[in-house]
Amino acid sequence: MSTPEHRDDWVWERTSFDARHTAKTESVLAQGNGYINVRNAEDESYVGQTRGTFVTLTFNKAMPDEVTELPNLPDVTAIDLSVNGERFSLDRGSHSDYLLRFDVRTGEVERRVVWTSPAGDTVSVRSRRFVSLVNKHLVVASLEVEALSGPVSLVVESGIDARVSNSGSQHCFDGEKRLMDGRILRLSTRTCQSRIPIAVHCAHAFSRDPISAIPVMERRRVIMRYRLEAVPGEPVVIEKASCYHTGRDLSFVTADNPGGTTESAPVLAAGDSCIASLEGASYDGTLAASRALWDRYWEHADVRITSDDPFDQLGMRLALYHLNIMVERGDSRAGIGAKGMTGEGYKGHSFWDTEIFLLPHYALTDPAAARALLEYRYRSLPGAFAKARENGYEGAMFPWESAWLDDGETTPLYGGADIVTGESIPILTGMLEHHITADVAWGTWLYYLVTGDDDFMERCGCALLLETARFWASRLEWKGALGRYEICNVIGPDEYKEHVDNNAFTNYMAAFTLERAAEVIDGMAERWPRAHAQLSERYNLHELAARFRERQSALYLPVSGEDGLVPQNDQYLSLRRVDLSKYRDEAGVSSIYEDYGQDEMNDIMVSKQADLVMLLRVMPRLFDPETRERNFVFYEGRCLHDSSLSHAQHGILAAWMGLDEMALDLYRHAVRIDFGDNPTSSDAGIHSANMGNVWQCAVCGFAGLHWDDGELSLENHLPATWEELSFEIAWRGARLRVTLTHAGFEVTHLSGAPVTLTIDGEHASVAPGARVGGGERA
Amino acid sequence: MSTPEHRDDWVWERTSFDARHTAKTESVLAQGNGYINVRNAEDESYVGQTRGTFVTLTFNKAMPDEVTELPNLPDVTAIDLSVNGERFSLDRGSHSDYLLRFDVRTGEVERRVVWTSPAGDTVSVRSRRFVSLVNKHLVVASLEVEALSGPVSLVVESGIDARVSNSGSQHCFDGEKRLMDGRILRLSTRTCQSRIPIAVHCAHAFSRDPISAIPVMERRRVIMRYRLEAVPGEPVVIEKASCYHTGRDLSFVTADNPGGTTESAPVLAAGDSCIASLEGASYDGTLAASRALWDRYWEHADVRITSDDPFDQLGMRLALYHLNIMVERGDSRAGIGAKGMTGEGYKGHSFWDTEIFLLPHYALTDPAAARALLEYRYRSLPGAFAKARENGYEGAMFPWESAWLDDGETTPLYGGADIVTGESIPILTGMLEHHITADVAWGTWLYYLVTGDDDFMERCGCALLLETARFWASRLEWKGALGRYEICNVIGPDEYKEHVDNNAFTNYMAAFTLERAAEVIDGMAERWPRAHAQLSERYNLHELAARFRERQSALYLPVSGEDGLVPQNDQYLSLRRVDLSKYRDEAGVSSIYEDYGQDEMNDIMVSKQADLVMLLRVMPRLFDPETRERNFVFYEGRCLHDSSLSHAQHGILAAWMGLDEMALDLYRHAVRIDFGDNPTSSDAGIHSANMGNVWQCAVCGFAGLHWDDGELSLENHLPATWEELSFEIAWRGARLRVTLTHAGFEVTHLSGAPVTLTIDGEHASVAPGARVGGGERA
Repeated sequence: MSTPEHRDDWVWERTSFDARHTAKTESVLAQGNGYINVRNAEDESYVGQTRGTFVTLTFNKAMPDEVTELPNLPDVTAIDLSVNGERFSLDRGSHSDYLLRFDVRTGEVERRVVWTSPAGDTVSVRSRRFVSLVNKHLVVASLEVEALSGPVSLVVESGIDARVSNSGSQHCFDGEKRLMDGRILRLSTRTCQSRIPIAVHCAHAFSRDPISAIPVMERRRVIMRYRLEAVPGEPVVIEKASCYHTGRDLSFVTADNPGGTTESAPVLAAGDSCIASLEGASYDGTLAASRALWDRYWEHADVRITSDDPFDQLGMRLALYHLNIMVERGDSRAGIGAKGMTGEGYKGHSFWDTEIFLLPHYALTDPAAARALLEYRYRSLPGAFAKARENGYEGAMFPWESAWLDDGETTPLYGGADIVTGESIPILTGMLEHHITADVAWGTWLYYLVTGDDDFMERCGCALLLETARFWASRLEWKGALGRYEICNVIGPDEYKEHVDNNAFTNYMAAFTLERAAEVIDGMAERWPRAHAQLSERYNLHELAARFRERQSALYLPVSGEDGLVPQNDQYLSLRRVDLSKYRDEAGVSSIYEDYGQDEMNDIMVSKQADLVMLLRVMPRLFDPETRERNFVFYEGRCLHDSSLSHAQHGILAAWMGLDEMALDLYRHAVRIDFGDNPTSSDAGIHSANMGNVWQCAVCGFAGLHWDDGELSLENHLPATWEELSFEIAWRGARLRVTLTHAGFEVTHLSGAPVTLTIDGEHASVAPGARVGGGERA
Repeated sequence: MSTPEHRDDWVWERTSFDARHTAKTESVLAQGNGYINVRNAEDESYVGQTRGTFVTLTFNKAMPDEVTELPNLPDVTAIDLSVNGERFSLDRGSHSDYLLRFDVRTGEVERRVVWTSPAGDTVSVRSRRFVSLVNKHLVVASLEVEALSGPVSLVVESGIDARVSNSGSQHCFDGEKRLMDGRILRLSTRTCQSRIPIAVHCAHAFSRDPISAIPVMERRRVIMRYRLEAVPGEPVVIEKASCYHTGRDLSFVTADNPGGTTESAPVLAAGDSCIASLEGASYDGTLAASRALWDRYWEHADVRITSDDPFDQLGMRLALYHLNIMVERGDSRAGIGAKGMTGEGYKGHSFWDTEIFLLPHYALTDPAAARALLEYRYRSLPGAFAKARENGYEGAMFPWESAWLDDGETTPLYGGADIVTGESIPILTGMLEHHITADVAWGTWLYYLVTGDDDFMERCGCALLLETARFWASRLEWKGALGRYEICNVIGPDEYKEHVDNNAFTNYMAAFTLERAAEVIDGMAERWPRAHAQLSERYNLHELAARFRERQSALYLPVSGEDGLVPQNDQYLSLRRVDLSKYRDEAGVSSIYEDYGQDEMNDIMVSKQADLVMLLRVMPRLFDPETRERNFVFYEGRCLHDSSLSHAQHGILAAWMGLDEMALDLYRHAVRIDFGDNPTSSDAGIHSANMGNVWQCAVCGFAGLHWDDGELSLENHLPATWEELSFEIAWRGARLRVTLTHAGFEVTHLSGAPVTLTIDGEHASVAPGARVGGGERA
């Protein structure tokens, strides 16, 4: 598999322009800070380009027949340049010395090119852009044009464009446009249904005054048209600072109203003062300030890999880059979208991705971020209660897709074409993919095990476990003839299969939830007295624990049969087998839906991702090693990895089972889902969960980090071609640096209380300032 | 001034591809039939392309802060082709033998090109498209691909795309998508506010079965992905038939509900049966049927010009082509948009363009079409009554911009940037441009003079004259000190000037309305007894006529002062004079708003178009010849022709005044507004009024056709470089062919009753089958 060009393990480069990569590059090199995210579109326009700017929490429903989503807000990235009347575009004229350079350390993107217009004028063009980590409202761009073949007249059109949409669905009003002080462009708009005020400002600064500056106000667009002269030897530099403010900004939140304000005036005022404060600030100065915060991030977050393939390192850093820009740490009203905010895919909605794929990373590196994500679930409980009620259940039934706090379920109802019926395939995940509610419980317990955060348990954790368990207790179906509870008619992680009974992943995770909740109730009075007091008012906790235990103990949990296979669900092992080689060899999205209708998919033995593999990953000690391996091998063979969630999780299992080459191959596959050379894999946004997966594959897979027993443990599964893997983790208030080589681990205690841990089966303890070793690779 | 390439006087051709012309070409070569209009975008996509499909009467308000407009409906023109994996685009690889050919006779557009992909595969591509005149719902396309350099794999993606919008404003729901019978794609949607159901169907047929055919359903998009193999010598032909149906279709209209149906089911059923009926129909067969109706149109509508510049002829035919596709003859619920339906400019709204610029053409060539347009005004009376009431007036105050029958005023409130204040300039035309109400009266009377259609007067004409006169009678302001009525605070045709008093055009046209209405009342009992009976029930007609006469006789009508100048308004002649040469020399839209704010524009002596020239055109006998010429010359010199309405009307006056060269120059200017080589003049649509203007300039200008005295008269003003001008007209039920050369007129009676007329001052009469002559050019 080839990889994109890259210069070193901090810089991603491409030295030739290929329009086929347009949308993917926009996603992969998206820039942001958790509050805002800007797709990395070129200044000039191309077919296939999808400019996108998303600001956290601005959820809106564009049309009555659509679901709420994160709107594509008015664009500031477009800067149209013409040279002696010829529109600058790499599709036109000729060009050389192309360089696209993404600095992972700061998120700055630079594009350089020498362009000769169809009329024969040659200029060099340098475009740079970044999003600030300091002032989170801020998007900054710089355009530098130098005449190379002789003096040229330039026209630069730049401003704010509200014609962008989410694939044609418009969320924002046309709005009110203004030019203020002859210098600042302002667009005031609002979302059409949620009525969130949005203010977009921008201002331009020049290395030399333009000859003329004309404001152009059109429908959904306000720009300045600048005319400039450029002569050889004197580059013309245009710097553009833009800022976004919305009524959902934390500064407008009050105790009564987590939704912020629906008044435009304060939002405009915030933007007015923000853009005014930038007067005189330079691109380079603003970037330097942002870089300082990035440096601080990398100091703790970097995962260092020494490998024969340098892309192993760069890929990890790209994942860590995205893990930093996808999360709005200070805001417990926000989840993480399945594409972060790097594109309109999955509409900015949060899925189980958060708890299963991302939370391990945040809990083990940045516990405050992890806590905010779980607090988001806690604050979304009203929607989960409502969903349970509507479906005839108790407790909290979390939405499969989650948006604004009180939206409840936001899964769209229809998807792609059914090849057989010719109709849109109904999307049943919102109705049937119930395991999300256990995943939230699993994430809650993971967070507690890793952090020991009793305050969180008091405020949110106990309630989350209790309410999710209440759901499961009511969800189980008693089968009198069999004398057991079952869970029928669900979708498991393997979404190819609808309406299945006793999905192994779902049943075990439901049992986990009931068991943990019962345990938590037992210890609550003592360990979390405030939660106990509060929840006791609502429930008879003793009875509840007893009920949870009764249900859990009588819940059917599939085990292996004579052939050693644990059935993925009641139906799977008797399904028709078909030749999967055609689909197994594909890169990217599987074409299997081009050959089978949804009804047929339910009848053949093929998986999107393997439920048993996921189960073995979230419960690493389940079954004996032989059963684990038998099932891993079997289910891997039926799986098309037609989900970005799949590869790296399989990689973890492969590492644990000592299948070294396979594990590394799966790691590399995971890295390349977004950062590889498939030109369309990430058009609608990067795969956030996969970013957490890449981290998990290294840390939980190759370094064998486990927390399940309530103790930190490490196992050396370092790939043969890796020399060293080194990362920092947070564990119960302490920070440790873990470095492993084939010679074993070195664990250095950086801060916090002493930590006891297991290194390749040996108990150890490490105190502040000390280091311990162990675990040579077999 | 250069002109586009053209092969002969029926075919418009371009032999090289220039992406700068993209949007303009889409407008100028738009295809339609009055019911539907499709912008002529290429199959493949380009930056700057604006695909557009408009269906009459589907007005909708996209957002609460916008006005109602004609929505850009889901697109069927996009057909994406890739050759061995390379996207076909003239921006990519290399190409030769490019030919874009528009057959004015049928509206068919053909594009041929030989393309070599970046990978080196060469194919010839031939795209054709037309809109049927027979089945008005139908858009038909053909794509022919031949491998030239060796066998190639083709992927063709084609279907229905609802991601299009009006500059980012979305009117339609995401909708329901289906593939029916494995063959027909269907999108069912509706407009978001007016809730008009829309059904779009398409089906593909192949010269050879594709290897695979996969339906792709995405958000706002349903397409088929076809894989085909092409080998040299065997072109692959794909024919695509599409049809549009809406709830506003005439077939769904009932006596109670002119709005049609809001139910989707009947609209879908109509589309289902329409697309089913096309199975087996070929592109060429369908085109031949449409061509037969076009031939019938041209037989009567063609204006034949023999000139030293063949573009004089082709330009006229392009105008006549648009005059045929912009009008939905059988439907009196529809006006004509200022851009027809060739683009989203002016939102599909009707202005005074209809009565002043278009109606002369229709009344004199196709009286039924003219009658339907006036019936549209009659059916819009409720909105006009409401506007009058809201403004404190009586009778009918017609909206400056008119859309659906009962929408009333639909003028947007804000336009472009004010260079001084930095804010959007408020658009005051809807509030202040009152002359529209007199223009409707003028058009009504014109129609009656030309047709003698008493049935129309009975049903609509008397009421239109009476209600518009009632408005004016209430609108006049009594100035006691001067002992006269005035009309203050208006905008005249010269829209550079706001809040003017006693605009000459407005005052004279108001007087015209009052005078005609009084006359009509006098004769009504005898000539139009049904109207008399009906209107008598509502009004004391005798008193009304007296009131109209009193107002008219005391209304201040500006006349020439000592300098021979009739003041355009009370303010104009004392305004500051500035040097206009910079703006007078410009082609296309004037840049004067880049130098002056709106307040300054009110203070300088400059006109967008000349009010006095317009007045002299609609009232050719007003003032003595010297005064006419004095004012023509003066006001022409202050006018920037910053309106597409201006040139040809000035041309008529120039012809009448014997300013031959100027007249021809203005005709050619008018032709080139849309059909000349300014690459952006028509991006948002062609200028419909100008199409009528081009016709008027020839027929009313060069052939000096007048109707004002209630008799047909002709005057020979044939330009020196034209040999012959020949056209057919309808006059009071008769049809005449008028041919003029420098030797004089030849008028041939084709059908109907005998006609008396004046030829260059000589009275004549022509009976069925006969011809008369006269009027040698001095």
